[in-house]
Amino acid sequence: MDPQVKFVLFEPSHPGNIGAAARAIKTMGFDLLCLINPKEHPHPEARARSSGALDVLLDAEVCDNLNDAIENCGLVVGTTSRTRRISVPTSTIRDIAPSIINKAKHKPVAILFGPEKTGLMNEQIDCCNQLINIPSSKSYRSLNLAMAIQIIAYELNFAWQALPSETEARNLASNSEMELFYEHLNQVLLETGFLNPRNPRQLMRRLRTLFNRAQLDENEINIMRGILASYKEKSN
Amino acid sequence: MDPQVKFVLFEPSHPGNIGAAARAIKTMGFDLLCLINPKEHPHPEARARSSGALDVLLDAEVCDNLNDAIENCGLVVGTTSRTRRISVPTSTIRDIAPSIINKAKHKPVAILFGPEKTGLMNEQIDCCNQLINIPSSKSYRSLNLAMAIQIIAYELNFAWQALPSETEARNLASNSEMELFYEHLNQVLLETGFLNPRNPRQLMRRLRTLFNRAQLDENEINIMRGILASYKEKSN
Repeated sequence: MDPQVKFVLFEPSHPGNIGAAARAIKTMGFDLLCLINPKEHPHPEARARSSGALDVLLDAEVCDNLNDAIENCGLVVGTTSRTRRISVPTSTIRDIAPSIINKAKHKPVAILFGPEKTGLMNEQIDCCNQLINIPSSKSYRSLNLAMAIQIIAYELNFAWQALPSETEARNLASNSEMELFYEHLNQVLLETGFLNPRNPRQLMRRLRTLFNRAQLDENEINIMRGILASYKEKSN
Repeated sequence: MDPQVKFVLFEPSHPGNIGAAARAIKTMGFDLLCLINPKEHPHPEARARSSGALDVLLDAEVCDNLNDAIENCGLVVGTTSRTRRISVPTSTIRDIAPSIINKAKHKPVAILFGPEKTGLMNEQIDCCNQLINIPSSKSYRSLNLAMAIQIIAYELNFAWQALPSETEARNLASNSEMELFYEHLNQVLLETGFLNPRNPRQLMRRLRTLFNRAQLDENEINIMRGILASYKEKSN
């Protein structure tokens, strides 16, 4: 079952942030948005900022109190920019994301965000099982609300996918092709006089390091061999 | 030394995104913003969205081409939503962040973002040593530009803070040194006849891709220039 994560915005002031929040969670594979006493909703700016996530915005649940919003949730996680409470456990979102996703596979988890100006107050924090924060600059911590939602949704998606990186495979040159190339290169450098056989220093080793790091593919090794061959043809 | 990471926005259309980008990078401890041909700049909406990061916005460098923007950078990292290129290595920002931070302690690193509508085109991607992507939903990947900047700045800050003792860093060649090398290479290949000016195909572009991927250091660029010079001496 897909994890059910509900992003709950407590008294958001700016409709732009609501639209941006809808887009942010959709880009990370989530679709549950809940607004508690939004100052202005619905609003054209929210629609504009939601971009391709208008469906998430239109489906947003609207409540007039926190209890209604979290009623069906098994876990309530509050967001805070400081670790100001010792009574509620506080973690970074990265540390706690796998556990949130696990729980959200069984019962919805609410992630609760306070108003733009103040963040969550004690009254709302008291409803939370857990607090999370986002590591940031020490001197300027003022993340925009929708930005904070984006980072948290990103971390939750990451934990959900726990994905191996998907770089496409290149058709790399084989080791023996590389050896032939180094031999060829060595020979041309002797001919041009750049490589002095009586004082070779570390030249070939350095060139090997360079090209090994580049991890040449078949195409590229052919180009390099062609370049070396063209020197020979020219000088004959 | 603090890592120097320059966030480079190529032809951004929306001033709101520029302001939000300034705020996003400042919350994560960075302050270098660079705009290439912004559609509208300066603009009151950018000021409003920058919030407490007006200093970053006002200090933003404005260029009219990509080369000027990356001239002093040792590494250029492009952002893409797909793994569409097999010749330029692609990683997730999480995997590559520690290595970017290490390099940025010695020479500025540029993180390059394309225009809102299209993302980076091949012409800009050809200037990149490395591509990164942000893992997201498979069905809706359309992250807002400033949101993408926020996530990448967040990951870089995370890697910066987590960085243990300094791992050895290479003194990378600057972009302008690389350009001089490509010019020299082009000229020698014309002289050897390997590069046919009437039918250049994709040769220089492929060679750029290869050497950009290798991320040459100062030492290596001197070796390569020496090799090219030795051809000239020989053939004279």
